[in-house]
Amino acid sequence: MTTEETGARASTGGSAIDASRAAAFLADFATMSAFGATERGGVDRQAATPADNEQRRWMQGLLEQHGLRVEYDRIGNQFGLLELVPGAPYVVVGSHMDSQPTAGRYDGAYGVLAAAHAVFAIADELAASGETPALNIAVVNWFNEEGSRFVPSMMGSSVYTGLLPLEEALAVTDAASVTVREALAPTGFLGEGDGPVAACCAEIHIEQGRLLEASGTTIGLVTASWAASKYVVTVEGEQSHSGATVMEDRHDALLGASLLVVFARELADRFPGVLHTAVGKLDVYPNSPVVVASRVRLLLDLRCADEAVLAEANALLATELAAIEQRASVSLRVERSHEWGINPYQPEGVALARSVAAQLGYSHDEIKTVAGHDSINMKERVPTVMLFVPSIEGISHNEGERTSDADALAGLDVLTGVVRRLAAGELRAP
Amino acid sequence: MTTEETGARASTGGSAIDASRAAAFLADFATMSAFGATERGGVDRQAATPADNEQRRWMQGLLEQHGLRVEYDRIGNQFGLLELVPGAPYVVVGSHMDSQPTAGRYDGAYGVLAAAHAVFAIADELAASGETPALNIAVVNWFNEEGSRFVPSMMGSSVYTGLLPLEEALAVTDAASVTVREALAPTGFLGEGDGPVAACCAEIHIEQGRLLEASGTTIGLVTASWAASKYVVTVEGEQSHSGATVMEDRHDALLGASLLVVFARELADRFPGVLHTAVGKLDVYPNSPVVVASRVRLLLDLRCADEAVLAEANALLATELAAIEQRASVSLRVERSHEWGINPYQPEGVALARSVAAQLGYSHDEIKTVAGHDSINMKERVPTVMLFVPSIEGISHNEGERTSDADALAGLDVLTGVVRRLAAGELRAP
Repeated sequence: MTTEETGARASTGGSAIDASRAAAFLADFATMSAFGATERGGVDRQAATPADNEQRRWMQGLLEQHGLRVEYDRIGNQFGLLELVPGAPYVVVGSHMDSQPTAGRYDGAYGVLAAAHAVFAIADELAASGETPALNIAVVNWFNEEGSRFVPSMMGSSVYTGLLPLEEALAVTDAASVTVREALAPTGFLGEGDGPVAACCAEIHIEQGRLLEASGTTIGLVTASWAASKYVVTVEGEQSHSGATVMEDRHDALLGASLLVVFARELADRFPGVLHTAVGKLDVYPNSPVVVASRVRLLLDLRCADEAVLAEANALLATELAAIEQRASVSLRVERSHEWGINPYQPEGVALARSVAAQLGYSHDEIKTVAGHDSINMKERVPTVMLFVPSIEGISHNEGERTSDADALAGLDVLTGVVRRLAAGELRAP
Repeated sequence: MTTEETGARASTGGSAIDASRAAAFLADFATMSAFGATERGGVDRQAATPADNEQRRWMQGLLEQHGLRVEYDRIGNQFGLLELVPGAPYVVVGSHMDSQPTAGRYDGAYGVLAAAHAVFAIADELAASGETPALNIAVVNWFNEEGSRFVPSMMGSSVYTGLLPLEEALAVTDAASVTVREALAPTGFLGEGDGPVAACCAEIHIEQGRLLEASGTTIGLVTASWAASKYVVTVEGEQSHSGATVMEDRHDALLGASLLVVFARELADRFPGVLHTAVGKLDVYPNSPVVVASRVRLLLDLRCADEAVLAEANALLATELAAIEQRASVSLRVERSHEWGINPYQPEGVALARSVAAQLGYSHDEIKTVAGHDSINMKERVPTVMLFVPSIEGISHNEGERTSDADALAGLDVLTGVVRRLAAGELRAP
């Protein structure tokens, strides 16, 4: 990536946000980060846990203090509504406040707070000028983006956009067999409607990689999401005594799974920078010290900046599976659970964001997102702008996740500009 | 292994046990196998669970019906006492009745029932002849041999022999934080004494391998246990986003663990038939679909028929650890939790067992045990005889574990002969 503009304000430089607005934002962010805070400076706010619930109540108070009306839809998405044009659709701007276990403070939460403060500023401007925008504006905190307690991820935005049936989502259970419906019911966050009608959408998020930092760029203009193939793999072996059984008689499911984990890394290494692979979740049965494992279930992801490379990687994987079955004397059952191509954001949205960043004098460049975001769902329905700010050392899904205050404020500045123009009707759905 | 004697009775041949005794044994074994029975023909009777408890109550009734007095010691070992010589020490004969999850019917349970039926027969003989033996006889069902619910394994015999402090064992917790003491207290199996004083010991067990079957041998005369090194390995990486983080920035604990699992297998393949290696238990943190694992904890065993080979394997492992740390950008913390050499059973006991098997006309041969058994603890204290019968296809720690009725009865026959001679004082501790 090359930086399009190495403008007046460097990544580590100052911000155009005035001092009192900057101070209010940073103070609110510090308050927010105390919900579910962990000892090592991170957070644990998995969806519909007490920490997530308390933070949502705090956010409701903040939105109401600034005159927004708070509403919940039937999957627990939280909306702060600024209705200035009765009956008009909304600019929906926000992200998510739930987190992974032992996660960082910025992932999602930064984007919701930036959306709220952007809308507060615009509401003040409109009140002062007496102008009426073309569209109403809604701050959103999507329910369960992370998908760690309740699978799948991006649950709230998937239901909102009709990509996941409501009843299916409400029936999902966590590890303790609690359903989404049961977890949400006592919180007061299970509403009755479908939420505001969206005309367009904006989201800002930390990059969770280090491309922006490496090139000294403050604002990432997200043009597309990477292609991805996601697999659920079950390795079937045979239980046997882990001491007494002679090696050639073993059908070791954990050996099969381990060969696959190692191969996934080798596959990524064959396509440097273009292909990311990962196994994050792996469960062993019976997982006993003296028993050869009979079954391992794991989730394998391939994410790729190039659809042709992804097809090649999938083919190489298919070939390797047979070799692993033979090497470990196991059988592999492989289901492809997700499959998507390079998925572009609307170019008009990228152009609008570029124009705002340039006007404000922040360095900016186009970037693709490897991670999933709620905006990926939203762009299937309405014109959507996605912005990134730098992650220090690219660290994310980690308690040490950080973004500099200067970059966080620059992102707020650009997001405010983008929402202002979206509210003026610049990019509404046809 | 070569078979010393291919005598009158082949592995699949008949038995010298008379028909009514054979029928009673097989009927009791069928009854026993119903406790904790699984759908696929196995059992799940982890220590101090309801299935284990019910089976122990049934065994108590069986022992009492045959005139034995039942007693429990302070770690819940179950003893059936035949006291014929007031004040004399005991021949302690038995095995364990707890199991792994989804385990087979024979592992341990066969040895306890064979011990009980051997003692019933000897008691009848002595009553008929009016003779007095040199020693008393105790049937034993050791508590928690498997170590799947409560670690370590061989807990009951370790406490009995003074190799594990009682208080330490009682304080061990299971995955739900229930202590051994709390699990045993409501069962009535937590006694107040130290159990009978042992003069010598015998145990019969299924082989859990296929050497006996392969050579057509009915009775294994166990001469020693394999040497072993057991490790607890913690792989420390760093949490990060499993999609967005560029590959070269990852510190993937699961990759490090997988490289180790694969290497352990390669190590065994370098010393075919002499070295067995295994990773049976492996836990991933945070084990989330979109997070690179920051920590994996696994148990790695090396078991070896040759101490020099084991030393070489340990050295190769130590070298490989550094390579894995570099390859996966992780750090490995390795603790050696157990270390023992080739550990012989008393040769006089092997000779006694050989003489009994030969006299009865069963094919027999010397064999080493790779698996741990309670008799390995007992032989540290008193002369101990260990016998094996064949496992069909070597299958064990598996619901499909089987031993033929003919072999099970042959084992009962030889065990009866061994216990008869032990009770006569042939091998008592000096």
